[in-house]
Amino acid sequence: MSDKAQNNLTPTQQSGLMEKIVALSKRRGFIYPSSEIYGGINGFWDYGPLGAELKRNLRDAWWRAIVYDRTDVVGLDASIIMHPKIWEASGHVAGFNDPMVDCKKCKGRWRADQLPETKCPQSGPHEFTEARSFNLMLDTYPGPIRSEENKTYLRPETAQAIFAQFKNVLDTTRQKVPFGIAQIGKAFRNEINPRNFTFRSREFEQMELEFFVKPDAFVKQGERTVAQWHEYWVEERFRWYESIGLPRTKLHPKVYEKKELAHYASACTDIEFDFPFGRQELEGIAARGDFDLSQHQKFSGQKMEYFDEEAKARYIPQVIEPSAGLDRTVLALLCHAYTEEKICAQAGTLMPPDAEETRIVMRFAPRIAPIKVAVLPLLKNKEILVTKAQEVFRLLQKHFVCQWDDRGNIGKRYRYQDEQGTPWCVTVDFETLEGAKADAPEFGVNAGDQDTVTLRDRDSMKQVRIKISDLVAEISRRW
Amino acid sequence: MSDKAQNNLTPTQQSGLMEKIVALSKRRGFIYPSSEIYGGINGFWDYGPLGAELKRNLRDAWWRAIVYDRTDVVGLDASIIMHPKIWEASGHVAGFNDPMVDCKKCKGRWRADQLPETKCPQSGPHEFTEARSFNLMLDTYPGPIRSEENKTYLRPETAQAIFAQFKNVLDTTRQKVPFGIAQIGKAFRNEINPRNFTFRSREFEQMELEFFVKPDAFVKQGERTVAQWHEYWVEERFRWYESIGLPRTKLHPKVYEKKELAHYASACTDIEFDFPFGRQELEGIAARGDFDLSQHQKFSGQKMEYFDEEAKARYIPQVIEPSAGLDRTVLALLCHAYTEEKICAQAGTLMPPDAEETRIVMRFAPRIAPIKVAVLPLLKNKEILVTKAQEVFRLLQKHFVCQWDDRGNIGKRYRYQDEQGTPWCVTVDFETLEGAKADAPEFGVNAGDQDTVTLRDRDSMKQVRIKISDLVAEISRRW
Repeated sequence: MSDKAQNNLTPTQQSGLMEKIVALSKRRGFIYPSSEIYGGINGFWDYGPLGAELKRNLRDAWWRAIVYDRTDVVGLDASIIMHPKIWEASGHVAGFNDPMVDCKKCKGRWRADQLPETKCPQSGPHEFTEARSFNLMLDTYPGPIRSEENKTYLRPETAQAIFAQFKNVLDTTRQKVPFGIAQIGKAFRNEINPRNFTFRSREFEQMELEFFVKPDAFVKQGERTVAQWHEYWVEERFRWYESIGLPRTKLHPKVYEKKELAHYASACTDIEFDFPFGRQELEGIAARGDFDLSQHQKFSGQKMEYFDEEAKARYIPQVIEPSAGLDRTVLALLCHAYTEEKICAQAGTLMPPDAEETRIVMRFAPRIAPIKVAVLPLLKNKEILVTKAQEVFRLLQKHFVCQWDDRGNIGKRYRYQDEQGTPWCVTVDFETLEGAKADAPEFGVNAGDQDTVTLRDRDSMKQVRIKISDLVAEISRRW
Repeated sequence: MSDKAQNNLTPTQQSGLMEKIVALSKRRGFIYPSSEIYGGINGFWDYGPLGAELKRNLRDAWWRAIVYDRTDVVGLDASIIMHPKIWEASGHVAGFNDPMVDCKKCKGRWRADQLPETKCPQSGPHEFTEARSFNLMLDTYPGPIRSEENKTYLRPETAQAIFAQFKNVLDTTRQKVPFGIAQIGKAFRNEINPRNFTFRSREFEQMELEFFVKPDAFVKQGERTVAQWHEYWVEERFRWYESIGLPRTKLHPKVYEKKELAHYASACTDIEFDFPFGRQELEGIAARGDFDLSQHQKFSGQKMEYFDEEAKARYIPQVIEPSAGLDRTVLALLCHAYTEEKICAQAGTLMPPDAEETRIVMRFAPRIAPIKVAVLPLLKNKEILVTKAQEVFRLLQKHFVCQWDDRGNIGKRYRYQDEQGTPWCVTVDFETLEGAKADAPEFGVNAGDQDTVTLRDRDSMKQVRIKISDLVAEISRRW
């Protein structure tokens, strides 16, 4: 389905599309409900073999763009459980609440601000209790004694660890303001009503950057102001989503008005994506002032100031925070990649040659696709074919994440790989052993050449005959 | 310090060595105490910029060896919080306990089986309470109601998620027994007394493989028995630790006797490493029978059987479990890499040429080193040098994780990079712009050539003059 077609769906079609994506995620091993054999656990999901690879690829793409391709950002990998004072300083203990109501009839508990009307989703129209505030942090008690002083929280965001370690990072690296600290990791929020598949979960993974910049008073000519750094990061992040294959047409900035901002923030722009269930946030890019570092200075008594050698001044840096949701980005990729298309029946199937069939194909960008190349021996019980295919597999495995696929007829295997989003299939057949039947001069193949295979493209379904020795270069070229 | 020298240290020297490693970890940004500005939190650690890279490299090396370089293992990335029934089935609710005693004088709480004598570590010789059992799982309450039925646990191991998703993975991949499911992720144990730096922490990361094999009754000639698969994985894992730079001389198998094994297990071998604080476990490789899958079948009512097409039989597979600690492996690498050596004073320092100085160098294997190449402009305020160095940096950055380093004199920068374990430094100097002074025909350099830099080796400290265009190939060759 083209972008345009997906955008023009009616609400019912959109919901149908979402159901198909959930079903495919389970069927092909992208995402399973956590603890499914025990009936599941609301708000928790597991990534299967393909989903685990998608997540790996996304983490790597983010880390490369944010850390490796720059000189002004370093990484951090902090603990999920931290000192409880951190969450007092950050404001989460006092203020990280959602309003909650109980249905007086069914006793169900709901988020007050998300009920469509005064109508309980479980049991119809009737009365709710007054809204009360409900803290979204999950607590736990490390240490041998279960006392209030040992009570702490599973982090509701990765960001605070970066602020708490700001001075350590500054003291142990050669970074100077402006610079950033990046982190990827799990966070937990006890959402009252998890929903929209993995979009709003109780356990999720964040990719957060805190980028520390000069207060405007110290900015010299030719340097970026705080507002310009904010603008810079909004644009950088849009470009990143495009680089992983999400089109700009489905990505939208949501610029917060001044009155919508927290008192310490000077700007916030969300990057929203057109999900089948609506336009929703993938990432927020906030200019948070010096709020977080100042709060930690106040609560810990430790100085969070930076000495600027050039400006000969001490200040607490301003912060730009691009904060992305990894699970949401996976979900956006799944939604965008999902395509159903009518095609002519595959050669080699039992269908008449002019019959149409529908194929499902996950159109992931190659760099994000869980498996890059599948290697298919035409028949799995012909040892000579299998041995040759293994040789091809070992060659490709050094360069790309590969999958061995020898089950079922070739047409079915191609469909299977389409549903996994594998960009290229390499088939080893009898021609490989005997010699090619036709010329393909662009791939250096002459009729009669041995050691040729077919290379099949996921999107065009075109197959070309190519020499094994040219495979790595040709796949790299198409990447 | 050579391996041999480190092994021959007295207990006091060993403890001194450990203190140095802890200090260097903080000083250079490998590992910080979590929440340090709030006085820390016992049993939790944060990985700084270099530590985060070490962990990334180890995760990647493990995933490559276990998943990508094979065809019979797939990945999983499951949630930390799972259904509480999982921990009933696994035996953790009833049996994951340590014996705990209270000191009657200072009220300190200790692990009964680890007290050296009847002597409280805090307040000397006196009386303890009777030992009581203490469950090591941290609990929390997801969901809007804090009720016993919503109580669950932070996973104390990643393994159980693999067993719980065994059928889903089997149904959604093309794997057949023997095959494995691999996972890397955080786990939590409420250790009574965390100790030995990061070795025994309350939050840690595991790299676990569950490898499912045929019961011996179905093994055909030429196939491995359960015991042979166990042996196979022990050897594979030893080879992996060698591949990341830990020498076999410091790695030791600890084979459990039958009477030491759990009732369901048929074998267990630990891989131990010679830490400065003693010989301790990095990984356990256990043959766990069909215990875990059978327990989940019993507790969930879902069939965990596998239908073996060849054997025309249904069975619950046997499991071999290589379970490695990521933090422990990082610690082993830090301990092994740490080297102090007396060297002649560096050219360019103010010391007399025959003076000796001590350098600290982290001898990481290149594939594990956090930074592969540092690029050093000789002077940071000569624009022409800096511009050239940036050009070199951008070239190398495409191939290796690089660091820009322009602060302080070159000798100090080399020492700084030595402490970070950076295998190669590339220095851009005036000769780069003007032309080389001497021939270095092995690197294609003739006196007078422009575009040459010095490439300095961390371990030998040897510097060679080399053409910029040959840098990538030469570094790749030395890797």
